[in-house]
Amino acid sequence: MLPSLTQARAPLTREVSAVNEFGESLTVSIPAERALTVYVDKRELVTLMTLGAQPELLVLGFLRNQRLVQSVQEVESITVDWEVGAAAVKTRQGISDIEARTAKRVVTTGCGQGSVFGDLMAEVDTLVLPAATLSQAQLYGIVNAIRLQESTYKSAGSVHGCALFSGEQMLLFVEDVGRHNAIDTIAGWMWLQDAATMNGGDKVFYTTGRLTSEMVIKSAQMGVPIVVSRSGITQMGQEVAQRLGLCTIGRATNKRFLCYSAAERLRLQPELAGARYRI
Amino acid sequence: MLPSLTQARAPLTREVSAVNEFGESLTVSIPAERALTVYVDKRELVTLMTLGAQPELLVLGFLRNQRLVQSVQEVESITVDWEVGAAAVKTRQGISDIEARTAKRVVTTGCGQGSVFGDLMAEVDTLVLPAATLSQAQLYGIVNAIRLQESTYKSAGSVHGCALFSGEQMLLFVEDVGRHNAIDTIAGWMWLQDAATMNGGDKVFYTTGRLTSEMVIKSAQMGVPIVVSRSGITQMGQEVAQRLGLCTIGRATNKRFLCYSAAERLRLQPELAGARYRI
Repeated sequence: MLPSLTQARAPLTREVSAVNEFGESLTVSIPAERALTVYVDKRELVTLMTLGAQPELLVLGFLRNQRLVQSVQEVESITVDWEVGAAAVKTRQGISDIEARTAKRVVTTGCGQGSVFGDLMAEVDTLVLPAATLSQAQLYGIVNAIRLQESTYKSAGSVHGCALFSGEQMLLFVEDVGRHNAIDTIAGWMWLQDAATMNGGDKVFYTTGRLTSEMVIKSAQMGVPIVVSRSGITQMGQEVAQRLGLCTIGRATNKRFLCYSAAERLRLQPELAGARYRI
Repeated sequence: MLPSLTQARAPLTREVSAVNEFGESLTVSIPAERALTVYVDKRELVTLMTLGAQPELLVLGFLRNQRLVQSVQEVESITVDWEVGAAAVKTRQGISDIEARTAKRVVTTGCGQGSVFGDLMAEVDTLVLPAATLSQAQLYGIVNAIRLQESTYKSAGSVHGCALFSGEQMLLFVEDVGRHNAIDTIAGWMWLQDAATMNGGDKVFYTTGRLTSEMVIKSAQMGVPIVVSRSGITQMGQEVAQRLGLCTIGRATNKRFLCYSAAERLRLQPELAGARYRI
């Protein structure tokens, strides 16, 4: 009863010519960026701007994270056609009350969110996160795995990356022009796995982008209690994470990091931090 | 006939405690992030997540860039009250057809946009940008001015900065948790200035964020024909800029840069680029 999905992967980079500071013309790679209009049971829902790596998982995760569908079984098929820039979602039973549930708009913090339908914040307090911890050694393993990952970012820049880990083992790495798309794609992928093996309990979510409230909430919705970023945190991200008991770890590069919330989930091993220095 | 505006500036950073890699607790600054719900003539329009530095200009620029008001004179007042997280906009004549004009949603590329109402792209082809050029020396002046700017980013990280320049003279510097907010704030500020002196013709727009289609379009809507960024460009940003003849300059740090479009607006002075090296 899993949905039927196309595999409409499109080229992720494109070459354009540019002029540099010496006045020379050169060819550089830039990330692709495509408009994908989502239709649910033939009703236009939203247009997403995306790199286009895994559009079907993106749409599935978007529907999940917007709470428009409650289980993956409700989705019969997702058909992406880049010729027309459309993703056609067919549900088994229709989505009741879709008009009302998509009416309220929130324009969220710039770097990597897009809009959130409805009042997600009201649902936050109902979320209970699984008990899980991460050791400092595992955290360093995660940071190192990301460093080694081949990526569109390395070849063309200007994309955000997200990854899902189990301990320090990388399960999935996703890039997109918006990090809200990357996390939605991960949500879609998790949903496709068997629910018994793919609960978020022992999972860690990594993002190159900032720890905003939306990233924290989406992680919590997926049942992932630990989020790691190379960037910092915003005030609402920190407040929501504290309320949820979700562990946020930012500024994670090399051996350094800052844990902003739920530090009890981080099993510190300061002896691994290396030579002590102050800047 | 300029609108009456409150000046509801709120604290831009907040101190929280964090745990570092040595297991030490320390106090760090993070950027503030507030929900600001915009009401136009008592009708709820949208909720913006913002740092809160200049909320009235943000709301004014948001209305402008969404094309919901055609001139600054249509706005009678903007009253921001952080106690309730609300911005009340009063127009002189009402906004006709506001339901239809805010119905279509586009979730734009992650890093720094928010949603765009209506079909902005359809309007792009009607925009004619003023003739203007920038010398390589002026470009270096802009990059240096940004480097010297005191900022929330330096003290707390996790914000985007935007600035408006006339040649290499900085007219305004704005930071926000989303760079779409920062550019909207600049748009609001420009609108408040006398139209005769504040057309975009000789202006240059700077952003720390990526050159996405939305940034390019918003710059073009403000009549600013040159955009500079320390980041790169996305495919749609590059395509729209080429169509508009808008000069986009990315990867601008120290003496380096890449001009992705309308290079004829950049008066090259390769002798200023310094010693030649290849990486």
